[in-house]
Amino acid sequence: MELTRQQLEDGIKKAGILDINSATIRQIVGLSKAMEQETGEEYIHLELGNPGLMAEEIGIAAEKAALDRGVANKYPDITGVAELKTAGSKFVKAFLDIDVPSRCIIPTVGSMQACFTLMTLLKQKDPGKDSLLLFTPFFPAQSHQAKLIGFNRVTMDIADYRGDKLRGRLEELLSSGKFAAMLYSNPNNPSWSNFTDKELKIIGEMATKYDVPVIEDLAYLGMDFRKDFSKPYQPPFIPTVAKYTNNYILLISASKIFSYAGQRVAIVCMSPEVYSRNYPEIERFYEMPNFGDAYIFGVLYMASSGVAHSAQFAMAEMLERAADGTLPFIAHTKEYGRRGGRMRQIFEDNGFHLVYAKDGEDEISDGFFFTVGYGNLTSEELQKELMRFGVCTIPLPSTGSTKDGVRVCVSMMTDEKHFDTLGKRLKRFHETHQLINQS
Amino acid sequence: MELTRQQLEDGIKKAGILDINSATIRQIVGLSKAMEQETGEEYIHLELGNPGLMAEEIGIAAEKAALDRGVANKYPDITGVAELKTAGSKFVKAFLDIDVPSRCIIPTVGSMQACFTLMTLLKQKDPGKDSLLLFTPFFPAQSHQAKLIGFNRVTMDIADYRGDKLRGRLEELLSSGKFAAMLYSNPNNPSWSNFTDKELKIIGEMATKYDVPVIEDLAYLGMDFRKDFSKPYQPPFIPTVAKYTNNYILLISASKIFSYAGQRVAIVCMSPEVYSRNYPEIERFYEMPNFGDAYIFGVLYMASSGVAHSAQFAMAEMLERAADGTLPFIAHTKEYGRRGGRMRQIFEDNGFHLVYAKDGEDEISDGFFFTVGYGNLTSEELQKELMRFGVCTIPLPSTGSTKDGVRVCVSMMTDEKHFDTLGKRLKRFHETHQLINQS
Repeated sequence: MELTRQQLEDGIKKAGILDINSATIRQIVGLSKAMEQETGEEYIHLELGNPGLMAEEIGIAAEKAALDRGVANKYPDITGVAELKTAGSKFVKAFLDIDVPSRCIIPTVGSMQACFTLMTLLKQKDPGKDSLLLFTPFFPAQSHQAKLIGFNRVTMDIADYRGDKLRGRLEELLSSGKFAAMLYSNPNNPSWSNFTDKELKIIGEMATKYDVPVIEDLAYLGMDFRKDFSKPYQPPFIPTVAKYTNNYILLISASKIFSYAGQRVAIVCMSPEVYSRNYPEIERFYEMPNFGDAYIFGVLYMASSGVAHSAQFAMAEMLERAADGTLPFIAHTKEYGRRGGRMRQIFEDNGFHLVYAKDGEDEISDGFFFTVGYGNLTSEELQKELMRFGVCTIPLPSTGSTKDGVRVCVSMMTDEKHFDTLGKRLKRFHETHQLINQS
Repeated sequence: MELTRQQLEDGIKKAGILDINSATIRQIVGLSKAMEQETGEEYIHLELGNPGLMAEEIGIAAEKAALDRGVANKYPDITGVAELKTAGSKFVKAFLDIDVPSRCIIPTVGSMQACFTLMTLLKQKDPGKDSLLLFTPFFPAQSHQAKLIGFNRVTMDIADYRGDKLRGRLEELLSSGKFAAMLYSNPNNPSWSNFTDKELKIIGEMATKYDVPVIEDLAYLGMDFRKDFSKPYQPPFIPTVAKYTNNYILLISASKIFSYAGQRVAIVCMSPEVYSRNYPEIERFYEMPNFGDAYIFGVLYMASSGVAHSAQFAMAEMLERAADGTLPFIAHTKEYGRRGGRMRQIFEDNGFHLVYAKDGEDEISDGFFFTVGYGNLTSEELQKELMRFGVCTIPLPSTGSTKDGVRVCVSMMTDEKHFDTLGKRLKRFHETHQLINQS
């Protein structure tokens, strides 16, 4: 596939996209479909984050068994089915080495619902704290959620404040007293950076010092493949801020770690201190004594009356079997690392560089996402040029990043021919742009 | 079971209930469990609205088949799976005789999510319209949702404005220009009133005249058993405001009509006019052209990224088979009418009266809920006295009602011995209160 600049610009116009940097993923998908129709050729789709593996079979078996037992006619307990709460508690002990009692494990309709509903309550808890600190780059939807909730969104790019710089910047921001919470994903979507232990310690200390709860989104838990986190109850454990503060809320979704995105199920793991914390404003509004109860009975109940009954049993089984070592979920997702490594090589062979490249002294892991730039092309230029050459990504500004580049997702590279095609197209891209640079 | 006044008051205190009229259902359930432990006897539970029938088997079969086909690893299309959208469109044509194109049929995680997310967008659409008109009595959660969204809640009791009075009151309220929407359930939870065609026509005309969208919650669709609505595509059709205005949004949940509450799935049916309506404030905020798109891509996506994939196929199959006449869902739910009729007789035999008793000239239907009062006891007195005698209900003030009485749900009366026990307990109640009145 090769489009002229004019062809692409016409397509962008037709797709109703005013600025490709602020286009939604859906708009970019729409644009790519239109171009595919026009040319009769398919894009290499690197823009979508659908799981590229089959759902864990034991989850499906557990879900079908639950349906056969007759769970479909009963409202699920809004606090979560007991099996899921217990399994969640075991899972975080096995892989993160932290103690979260089952009452603080709360199922949600994916981490999307978790994030949306937590933000709702965090925004209310203290009327003076109207700001949310978002580490960038981020999953764009979380920023939209914060906007919808009415937060003042403050961003800081992880690449600009690595290591010791992180403390200074957090001190500067959090000491304002304006922040209701801070939010990041680790591994980071989309840069695949991982905070070092030192950085997590700094974040934890700041969360405690300034009483700002941390939402740690572990959507890609265990997918830092540089270390072997696969053995339950044995070090190394998956790094988490929960080791360094009690002011944490962890989000663990079945979508990616168990390739279970279709069934919309996740758990919120709240520290007992966060759960039991009393805020006068929350007590006044919800007539409930603490944050955790208000979250469950005051917010989650209102948001959907709970999570599909059978899906809760599916996640319970997967967490349980992961913790007892019989479901090697990290070995399964390692396929993303393999794909990522190959793709990175193809990009680098054709003149691209990683935008977010290091964690401290170490190269980042290969995983579900990575970020690439090319020469001194801006995000907009690179996004458009890649689209001209049949490669669909999303531009980094849509992830809150201030860097030039695009986000690449490895999940749809399910076939050998995808790698071949990607290689050929990037080669053409590179040849063309080298020619441009020489002219 | 018979408790002294002191025993009950002690229990209420221990349960942390300050005012039983504003206690949540959950608090009342908690109180009943504590009393059951204390006495070793079980309550007759009339407070909970769990389906009392088995889930429709064809739904479960469809759900298992979808899981076997491999839907669990794929994010569901946020607009809804095509099969569900088409089936929803057929279903409303078959039973309500209205035309809603499949693009305007949108799945949600139960009608709880539908209501919560619709309120979110309705509150935004026009900054000058900050009020929501709630017809009472209501399902308490919907009022809590409106509070959480930040609506100014205005209530009007259906019993006070039946027939021609309805027009005057609506004119008076809606002409203020303050209302973003109005909301009711029909059949009404908990009174089991049904608006007459004349009343629906008035509501529809007012919705059009004052441009106030109506949310019609059809959670108990078809459960006005006075008429035979069971034949698809044949009159009589289930009455709906959609016959009288284009300014409607219908909520159809699988929870009660298919006894599928556990899987949390429902559809929103928006009129094409509501879907396509442009509001400058919505376009500004969501950068999307109309209400329907902003609802799906701007709100529902943020709320949960869609509805469990397999549950969507379950609901699709149930709607489809209902519409083609092979799933006699109304015949199945008619069991609630049978239970309701027997229970009403038992209450009336023991001196109780229906609080909401008439639809126009007609007696109300028997169904999932009804409301009873006793002599001149207040709601609080009646709730407490019934609890003393082993019958657990919820007081009417928690449903926004201004009348004295309690709400009774028939669903948990699954066994002949429940009816016997209810009869005996109400007899003791009646004897005791007659004695009190005579003394």
